[in-house]
Amino acid sequence: MVLHSLYLVAIVVEAMTAALAAGRRDMDWFGVCVLGCVTALGGGTTRDVLLGNHPLSWVAHPSYLLITAGAALATVFAARYMHHLRRVFLFLDAVGLVVFTVIGCNIALGLGVPLLIVIVAGMITGCVGGVLRDVLCNDVPLLFRSELYASVSVVTGGLYVGGLALALPHDLVMACALGIGLSLRLLAIRFGWNMPTFHYTRDLH
Amino acid sequence: MVLHSLYLVAIVVEAMTAALAAGRRDMDWFGVCVLGCVTALGGGTTRDVLLGNHPLSWVAHPSYLLITAGAALATVFAARYMHHLRRVFLFLDAVGLVVFTVIGCNIALGLGVPLLIVIVAGMITGCVGGVLRDVLCNDVPLLFRSELYASVSVVTGGLYVGGLALALPHDLVMACALGIGLSLRLLAIRFGWNMPTFHYTRDLH
Amino acid sequence: MVLHSLYLVAIVVEAMTAALAAGRRDMDWFGVCVLGCVTALGGGTTRDVLLGNHPLSWVAHPSYLLITAGAALATVFAARYMHHLRRVFLFLDAVGLVVFTVIGCNIALGLGVPLLIVIVAGMITGCVGGVLRDVLCNDVPLLFRSELYASVSVVTGGLYVGGLALALPHDLVMACALGIGLSLRLLAIRFGWNMPTFHYTRDLH
Repeated sequence: MVLHSLYLVAIVVEAMTAALAAGRRDMDWFGVCVLGCVTALGGGTTRDVLLGNHPLSWVAHPSYLLITAGAALATVFAARYMHHLRRVFLFLDAVGLVVFTVIGCNIALGLGVPLLIVIVAGMITGCVGGVLRDVLCNDVPLLFRSELYASVSVVTGGLYVGGLALALPHDLVMACALGIGLSLRLLAIRFGWNMPTFHYTRDLH
Repeated sequence: MVLHSLYLVAIVVEAMTAALAAGRRDMDWFGVCVLGCVTALGGGTTRDVLLGNHPLSWVAHPSYLLITAGAALATVFAARYMHHLRRVFLFLDAVGLVVFTVIGCNIALGLGVPLLIVIVAGMITGCVGGVLRDVLCNDVPLLFRSELYASVSVVTGGLYVGGLALALPHDLVMACALGIGLSLRLLAIRFGWNMPTFHYTRDLH
Repeated sequence: MVLHSLYLVAIVVEAMTAALAAGRRDMDWFGVCVLGCVTALGGGTTRDVLLGNHPLSWVAHPSYLLITAGAALATVFAARYMHHLRRVFLFLDAVGLVVFTVIGCNIALGLGVPLLIVIVAGMITGCVGGVLRDVLCNDVPLLFRSELYASVSVVTGGLYVGGLALALPHDLVMACALGIGLSLRLLAIRFGWNMPTFHYTRDLH
């Protein structure tokens, strides 16, 4: 199935970008692998823990751990060549965001939760991995300040859930949600679109 | 029910103070909403995940997400006027702490866990939201250094659980626990009461 | 049972070293106790939440909370004498790592998960407590940069699971896994063995 192939591409890409973040913090090879796994699989894990959906995907399919740890470790050796591929990586990272989102929505739909929670589950799947990566690297999560990243996830999930609620054909809805979400993210990167930020300097206490 | 109304006030207040913390980190509007939801609902979520109590409150009642996200977003526009209300906010934050604690104890009692765990569940409900806010803002959690915050939660939970264990009337016990806990917190703020701190400078390794 | 006694020693030692970390951050006594509990019990808690294994150990046995909080609080008063015992603590910390690992593997085996996940469960039990301690202290987790810490856990778990898979006697397998893992960790500390690290300075974005 196309979605599953895209999922495998997405976890590999997420693990590789996490490995670069680990390299910026001088982590050892083991830390690189752990950060790769946590970043690639942490979003889906958080979703399933919050929804009480056991077993987790990587518990049922341990190969996901090997794939992401392997991709992270390969990055240690391939990093010097990856800079030339940065456009490819930005593109694949955007693909991963929308694919994770649709997969997360799909799983939440299967659990019969309210539609708003389905969209939230998609967003958690798409975004939480990067938040965990940033917390473990001791950064303020980039998610909260980056080009429409989380917003793209919400739009993608909203289109997907809305289309299905209108009883439109599943494959058409999925293709539209993925395509529109991906375009929005790529346009946001290209033109530097950002959500407005909130500046506040006084102390409440 | 009074407790439920106080709960709604408490999650709104928690979301608004979290929004101000987000503003100090220049987060975008989306990050403001996420931080508001995580801070207001994160304590109860952590309690339910640890106790295996599904579905989570915001999964069963998605309106809680809308209320907290809306309160956080409204803070972006209302922040300039909130400084004049800082005493009101400190008061409502203290109300939130004891209300969250009693609600957490109540839910844990319903699950039949040991009484010590009931008190711990109340403390997790009252305090973990603020810890998550501080971790996501890349601060050392304020909880570990602030005026009797967590201690107030333990005292409130202890009075509540102890009173019920003595078979005193529920409403009386609840009112006493809320009142004494709230008074203790307000006195601690007013007079700068703090737990003693532990200073240690040598490296064990 | 020997393993249970070693477990109690291990959670006490983990709580005490966490208390020293809390002291370096000037936390108050309550924060010291919380950090002690989270560090000592957080690894097993994470494992059980991820595997959906309820009730958690400290929910079923609240005395674990009292033991770890008490050990952390005692450290506030004993810290001045502990520096002379640093070799003892490094040794007991290494014992704790391998004991936590074997216990984690054991519990995962009882849940019937794949063998790779059994080893991962052992590693989570052994290592995640320290990661939580470092995140709450606002440090980059030491795990990702320290002398074979996580690697020792994986080796210990691998030997244990591998030995049982070969149908060797349980006690022999456990003794070998604990002994070899402990020796590896002590040699790594003694000779400063480290995993190679990954340095990367360019920004992908």
